[in-house]
Amino acid sequence: MIQIYTGNGKGKTTAALGLALRSLGSGKKVCLIQFMKKNFLYGEIKSLRNFENIDIFQFGTAELVDPNNPRKIDFEEAKKALKKSSEVIQSQKYDLIILDEINVAVEWNLISLEDQLQIFQITTAAEIVMTGRYARQEVLEKADLVTEMKEIKHYYQKGIPVRKGIEF
Amino acid sequence: MIQIYTGNGKGKTTAALGLALRSLGSGKKVCLIQFMKKNFLYGEIKSLRNFENIDIFQFGTAELVDPNNPRKIDFEEAKKALKKSSEVIQSQKYDLIILDEINVAVEWNLISLEDQLQIFQITTAAEIVMTGRYARQEVLEKADLVTEMKEIKHYYQKGIPVRKGIEF
Repeated sequence: MIQIYTGNGKGKTTAALGLALRSLGSGKKVCLIQFMKKNFLYGEIKSLRNFENIDIFQFGTAELVDPNNPRKIDFEEAKKALKKSSEVIQSQKYDLIILDEINVAVEWNLISLEDQLQIFQITTAAEIVMTGRYARQEVLEKADLVTEMKEIKHYYQKGIPVRKGIEF
Repeated sequence: MIQIYTGNGKGKTTAALGLALRSLGSGKKVCLIQFMKKNFLYGEIKSLRNFENIDIFQFGTAELVDPNNPRKIDFEEAKKALKKSSEVIQSQKYDLIILDEINVAVEWNLISLEDQLQIFQITTAAEIVMTGRYARQEVLEKADLVTEMKEIKHYYQKGIPVRKGIEF
């Protein structure tokens, strides 16, 4: 089954990570594929590396993608992330597969909507989680579970900067 | 600062757990207090026990609370959870404190709205996360960050039962 966490509120990637934690505790095998997050030293990645039953693949570069002017390498990395996603799902080795920020990669045209929809065609018993703002209507329609994380209030509005251990 | 994850969609507790994972990876000290979840062998609890820098306190009983007919012990356990929450925040020992399902405890009158609002009065540098449906308007107003997890679609609607490693 395919779960989508989308919307403009805080909690999409963390919800997927919490699910990873839960699955790992139940003895399941987890794969985390991060689109556009390579070389970031996220606290959560450090924590997850303590577990044997998880494989983590990061794509992208250390620099943030400029959605109005993506570089050649941004396209290449997103395509690599997509290819790895297909391979991982087809391997049938995992119970839970998280495709972190794939929705944003589509919105920014680093990969196409058709690319994302093709993932739904792969036969697998794995639970697949797709995160990121901007999930397309076609994706929502095909998914089995969709939660919209809706920002009601955010401390960014008060000028609070991103904080280590909370935002990354 | 106080973060609230509420709404009827999947992802509230898991978002808090993902945040715990992130904070632990950044060397921070975490406390998880679960209202109404005692004796449940959740996968996530098993995973979190691998970390040294987290303390976990569960309250409630092994049986689900009947919101229309709560037992004496349900009130007692919720009050204990509330007391522990205050103590833990006042101890200044933690960087992140998660009060899991506290919003539901208020909705079901196991503790009062005033009890929950008093937590906002405690002076602390810790990040506090409150989860659960039904967060009251007064709580949302006082919080620094609020995400509503909105159910757009859920596989329960298709008759899929709860699954180990995914729902618990």
